Amino acid sequence: MIITIGREFGSGGREIGRRLSEELEIAYYDQEILTEIAKRTLLSESYVRQVVENRPVSAFPIHIGRSLHPITPPALQDQNNLIYQEQSETIKDLAKKSSCVIVGRCADYILKDFNPFRIFVYADMEKKVNRCKAKAPKGEELSDSQLVKMIKSIDKNRRKYYDFYTDLKWGRRENYDLCINTSNVEISVIAKDLASFLRTMYS
Amino acid sequence: MIITIGREFGSGGREIGRRLSEELEIAYYDQEILTEIAKRTLLSESYVRQVVENRPVSAFPIHIGRSLHPITPPALQDQNNLIYQEQSETIKDLAKKSSCVIVGRCADYILKDFNPFRIFVYADMEKKVNRCKAKAPKGEELSDSQLVKMIKSIDKNRRKYYDFYTDLKWGRRENYDLCINTSNVEISVIAKDLASFLRTMYS
Repeated sequence: MIITIGREFGSGGREIGRRLSEELEIAYYDQEILTEIAKRTLLSESYVRQVVENRPVSAFPIHIGRSLHPITPPALQDQNNLIYQEQSETIKDLAKKSSCVIVGRCADYILKDFNPFRIFVYADMEKKVNRCKAKAPKGEELSDSQLVKMIKSIDKNRRKYYDFYTDLKWGRRENYDLCINTSNVEISVIAKDLASFLRTMYS
Repeated sequence: MIITIGREFGSGGREIGRRLSEELEIAYYDQEILTEIAKRTLLSESYVRQVVENRPVSAFPIHIGRSLHPITPPALQDQNNLIYQEQSETIKDLAKKSSCVIVGRCADYILKDFNPFRIFVYADMEKKVNRCKAKAPKGEELSDSQLVKMIKSIDKNRRKYYDFYTDLKWGRRENYDLCINTSNVEISVIAKDLASFLRTMYS
C-alpha cells in the first residue's frame, strides 16, 4: 500500500500523512526526510567518486597542478536535477521496501507504476493562516498578511517544482484519487475513516 | 446533515449519493426528482394563475377575442430562470425539512447558508465510458467515441449551468469539501467509510 500526499502549505497534509501512517502502521516519509536521505547519498557518492578519481592524480604527481583550479560548480539547475534524480531513486527504493505514506516531492508521479493512492490536501486561506498561527513557535508569530504572503510563495514554489518535474499540473483534481479540503473537518476524524477505507481497498 | 454532490457524468456520483443516503438513513434527491417537483409546482402555480387571471375574461365575454391570439411564450432563458428559482426554493424547503443528500442543481451553492458537506465526484474518461457502457440498456449501446462525445457535451452543459447560476466554477476543488475520483475505487466501499466519517462529524 503506497499512499502519496500532495498538499497546500498550512492545510494539514503532513498531519493527515502522519496519522494515516500511524493508523495503518506503515512507514512515513516527508519532504525533509527524503531530502536528507538524498543529500546523504549524494554526499557519500561524491566522496567515493572523489577518492577514486583522485587516486591517479596522487599517483602521477606531474598532474598535481590541476588541483589548484577550483572545480567549476555545476549550474544550480543541474544540482537540482541531480537531487531530484537522487530523490526519485530514494523514493522508488523506499516504495519497493514496504508500504508507506510519502508526503510531497512529486511522489505520486515518480511512483505511478506502483499505482499509489494519491491524496491532495488543501484548505481555505483563512484556515491555513489560522493553522500556521497555532503552530508558530512563541515569539516567532507573523502577521496575517505576512502569513498569506508566505503561504502563497511556498505553494508557488511547490507548483513550479511539480510542474517542472512532471507533465502534470500541481493540485488539479484529475491527478489525484482524493482531494480533501480540511477547512471544515477534524483531521483526526477523517484520517481514521480514510485509513479504514484504505485498509478495505488494499485487503 | 445536508450533503450535496456535484459530479461528472458517468462518474458514479448518483450511486455515491444513493448509497450515502441509505447508509445514513436520510432523504435522497437528485436532478430528476428536483426538476419534477419544481415543474409540478410551476405547473400548478401557472394553472392557478391562469384560472385567477381568466376569471375576468370569462366574466366579460366582450374580451374573449383575445384568447385567439396565442400567448407569447417567455424567452427560453426566462423560463429557465423561473425553473431555477423554483428549484432553489424547493431545495431550500427540502433542506429545512430533514437531513438529506442532494445531487446536482447547484445545491452546494443554493444551500451555502446551511453549511452543507460538499462532495464532487469525478473519474478518468476511460472509466466513465466503461461505466456508461455497463449501464446502457440492451440494444441501446453507443460506441466509445459516441459516449465520449455525449459525456463531454453533458458535462459542458453542467458547467455552463453551474457557472451561470453561481459565482463559482464547476468542479474546482476549492468549492468542495471532498473530491472523489472513482476511477480506481469501489464505490460501495468509499460510501461506507464516508458515511462513517459524516456520522462522526455531525454527531
